[in-house]
Amino acid sequence: MTAYQSLEKQFKKLFNYEHLAAICGWDQAAMMPDGGNEARAHAMSELAVLCHETLTAPEMGQWIEEAEATVASLSEEQKVSLKEMKRVWQQATVLPSYLVEAKSIAGSKCEHEWRTQRKENEWDKFAVNLKDVVKLAREEAAIRAEQTGLSKYNAMLDLYEPGMTTEKLDVIFGELKSWLPELTRQIIEKQSNVTVEEPAGPFPTEQQAELGKKLMGILGFDFNHGRLDVSIHPFCGGVPQDVRITTRYNEEDFTQAIMGVVHETGHARYEQGLPASLQGFPAGQARSMGIHESQSLFFEMQLARSPEFVEHIASFAKDTFDRQSDQDFDISNINALYKRVQPGYIRVDADEVTYPAHVILRYEIERDLIEGNIEVDDIPGIWDQKMQEYLGISTEGNFINGCMQDIHWTDPECKMSTAENHNYKDGCMQDIHWCDGSFGYFPSYTLGAMYAAQFMAAMRKTIDVDICLKQLEIAPISAWLEENIWSKGSTLTTDELVIQATGEPLNPEYFKQHLINRYLNN
Amino acid sequence: MTAYQSLEKQFKKLFNYEHLAAICGWDQAAMMPDGGNEARAHAMSELAVLCHETLTAPEMGQWIEEAEATVASLSEEQKVSLKEMKRVWQQATVLPSYLVEAKSIAGSKCEHEWRTQRKENEWDKFAVNLKDVVKLAREEAAIRAEQTGLSKYNAMLDLYEPGMTTEKLDVIFGELKSWLPELTRQIIEKQSNVTVEEPAGPFPTEQQAELGKKLMGILGFDFNHGRLDVSIHPFCGGVPQDVRITTRYNEEDFTQAIMGVVHETGHARYEQGLPASLQGFPAGQARSMGIHESQSLFFEMQLARSPEFVEHIASFAKDTFDRQSDQDFDISNINALYKRVQPGYIRVDADEVTYPAHVILRYEIERDLIEGNIEVDDIPGIWDQKMQEYLGISTEGNFINGCMQDIHWTDPECKMSTAENHNYKDGCMQDIHWCDGSFGYFPSYTLGAMYAAQFMAAMRKTIDVDICLKQLEIAPISAWLEENIWSKGSTLTTDELVIQATGEPLNPEYFKQHLINRYLNN
Repeated sequence: MTAYQSLEKQFKKLFNYEHLAAICGWDQAAMMPDGGNEARAHAMSELAVLCHETLTAPEMGQWIEEAEATVASLSEEQKVSLKEMKRVWQQATVLPSYLVEAKSIAGSKCEHEWRTQRKENEWDKFAVNLKDVVKLAREEAAIRAEQTGLSKYNAMLDLYEPGMTTEKLDVIFGELKSWLPELTRQIIEKQSNVTVEEPAGPFPTEQQAELGKKLMGILGFDFNHGRLDVSIHPFCGGVPQDVRITTRYNEEDFTQAIMGVVHETGHARYEQGLPASLQGFPAGQARSMGIHESQSLFFEMQLARSPEFVEHIASFAKDTFDRQSDQDFDISNINALYKRVQPGYIRVDADEVTYPAHVILRYEIERDLIEGNIEVDDIPGIWDQKMQEYLGISTEGNFINGCMQDIHWTDPECKMSTAENHNYKDGCMQDIHWCDGSFGYFPSYTLGAMYAAQFMAAMRKTIDVDICLKQLEIAPISAWLEENIWSKGSTLTTDELVIQATGEPLNPEYFKQHLINRYLNN
Repeated sequence: MTAYQSLEKQFKKLFNYEHLAAICGWDQAAMMPDGGNEARAHAMSELAVLCHETLTAPEMGQWIEEAEATVASLSEEQKVSLKEMKRVWQQATVLPSYLVEAKSIAGSKCEHEWRTQRKENEWDKFAVNLKDVVKLAREEAAIRAEQTGLSKYNAMLDLYEPGMTTEKLDVIFGELKSWLPELTRQIIEKQSNVTVEEPAGPFPTEQQAELGKKLMGILGFDFNHGRLDVSIHPFCGGVPQDVRITTRYNEEDFTQAIMGVVHETGHARYEQGLPASLQGFPAGQARSMGIHESQSLFFEMQLARSPEFVEHIASFAKDTFDRQSDQDFDISNINALYKRVQPGYIRVDADEVTYPAHVILRYEIERDLIEGNIEVDDIPGIWDQKMQEYLGISTEGNFINGCMQDIHWTDPECKMSTAENHNYKDGCMQDIHWCDGSFGYFPSYTLGAMYAAQFMAAMRKTIDVDICLKQLEIAPISAWLEENIWSKGSTLTTDELVIQATGEPLNPEYFKQHLINRYLNN
């Protein structure tokens, strides 16, 4: 067996172990009764150790070295595959095991206690845990920086969005910041005389699921290789041959679950469309978090929230919930509902116009935190200042016990200016990402939104997307994505992928034009 | 770390891996879309190798030796635990790896092709594969016999029912054979003037599931540590902290699924009641297949099919399916339905009176097959002769293409006496067990039925079971089972367990009395 074949065998083994982790992880979120959690946590942790041991097995370094020495004997695909194998192996081996363990313990503690601390708005207690996590993340970043020659934060960013740097992001996000606040203001002004009615429930879960599956089918989800279920936090899991997506249902509002299903369907189709010839190898996996998000946002923002597709959603929903004569189901109302722009505290509830502000704010804080320019104690102050700057709202002094849950920034009665009443809960304590040290992840969301807009612009050069959506003829759209994105796996860098697909590197102008077209020019 | 502690650590690791196998196995049967099967099969097979490697790790022999040398330092529980560790380790290590692999390949091939061959009634083709399986099983049995000092078939029996031997079984089953045919005849005669009506469907799946869950709850299933789902072949899987039971629904007949759920609930409560202090170790696991079956049959035959409990089932079913005025739901009819005795070809469809005949027939054949007294080619002839002898029906010469599926032995039109029309499909080709070499398993079913009757007789000495069932007060019954069976795990031999619980070793007289009381004395 050649060294390269040994590597392939080892990565196939890892792929099999990760298959088990993916299915048991899905089960934990979607099926497992509460009482099963302790035993499951032990089993999953044992498997995580095994996956790490498999990827960092003592022979791996030598195999990689030998394979590199005889690289001339490999096919082009194998060369790329080897490069990606080496990249994930290096990322996995560089951390000393004491640090991996310390990170895992600090992360679990921080995340576990955050679940209560957030509810109780206890920033001070949370900050104690977060400081431990940040200390270890800085240590990790320093080690990764030394290995890669990147800056500390860039080395973390590289885990989620290989090739992306603060130098590029500062420019890209800088551009967004230059026009987004004003654009947001204009959109809100334009929408101020639009009345939107929320259709009144109940909308039974079974019917919502039926509608969700109908849309999944239309959008090309392969039910022979995947399923839709329910979990508290929607996600896309499983393996490419068996993709598990989840959603959550609110019987008073079907619009969220339905669009959530569409979003996860985008993730799922990427997974289902990854190259079979590289199955099990790093080069056969999704390129990056940003590209993954570009696919979910392509399906949600570019396809499903287009007026052409919303018309179908409204019509299907009318049938599904038997509301033929309910005016709230009129296309114009459903369309207005799905286009509503409103600054708010919570990132996950944000519309596509205000979402980037949430991401840029987090990016700037975590970048400075990892580089050592600010400390955990500085976060709340910076958060509030940037919320004010980018979205015109503040989480400072607006917390009143009890009404916090439903507070709206325009409601003056809920504003108080004492430090004790600072709304950390819906401010810098709202996300799980920092708890377990996932610094460098946040930019992916907005990168995804921008990639999606750019892909759509490129696609429109050869495909009449509006006609496709009007006629629910998704095949040409799928074929373009499959050819340009899905089938590439990780065989290209993100830059190469975007340039090959669209003719140029990431250009935020497409995103801007998309927002202007959808929210102002109509 | 002491040698014993090393063993505990290794078995905990194995337990974690087996947890993943149990959940992914359940998922495969209950959740997975078809297209996921290939990748899943690879992942499961990788995990099976890992489990085997973990149990047979090179250090294990030395750890066991060292732990035995310092056994005085162990607690009583640890001593027992060590004994069971050694037993499963010996069973796992004794086979050379070429044989394990050959068995796996031959078994997979035989089982895979059996799925079509059975449908097509192709005994000749099936026999070719079965001969390979039997050859390897005999080799396995010889190796296990040498290790254990048992006879060849006894060494196989020991895998499923430790301590059980043909010497004991020949006596026990001999007794059954001495009275069961005549008893069956009497029961059938008695029932010949009873009219039974099958309630007419449809009975929607959701309502059947609701009724099943209601009964599970009444029977003490802990939904915080388990769930009920659907699969083609009902089973009890998962782990003690998260037991997954399944059933299948027929919308024309609710009675089968409901009783199937009760049966699996018995298996589940055994698992949920295993000793927590020994969790993860062999001594903390279920004692044997026979004892496991005794718990499912206790719940099904001793509890749920009692007239006291059937009365509740009839009443709940009336409510669930809204059939208040349907006479087919009358207690007397539902009771007669659940007590109907009818010899038939198919073991899994048999009632509790005729079931032992199916088992004894298989036991006698597999015993002689493994000991080398008969050959695969002899099976159909012996099968027919014993079916005639024990049940008064024959699979010989009753096969007519097309009507085979629904054939009934009393229907003379379907009888033909040519060899080509031999009904192998519903005869010696009906079970999956021999395909993969599970020789020694069949006796467990009838041992379970006899243990269950004996446990019930013992329980009745201190508990008024009829009152409990009338009042649906299951707690005292559960407490008895938990104290005497579940909490013992594998810390006692089967004989010790039965003697401690009932005051004597297995005695088929209790089963006989149970059948007489239920089917003749009323």
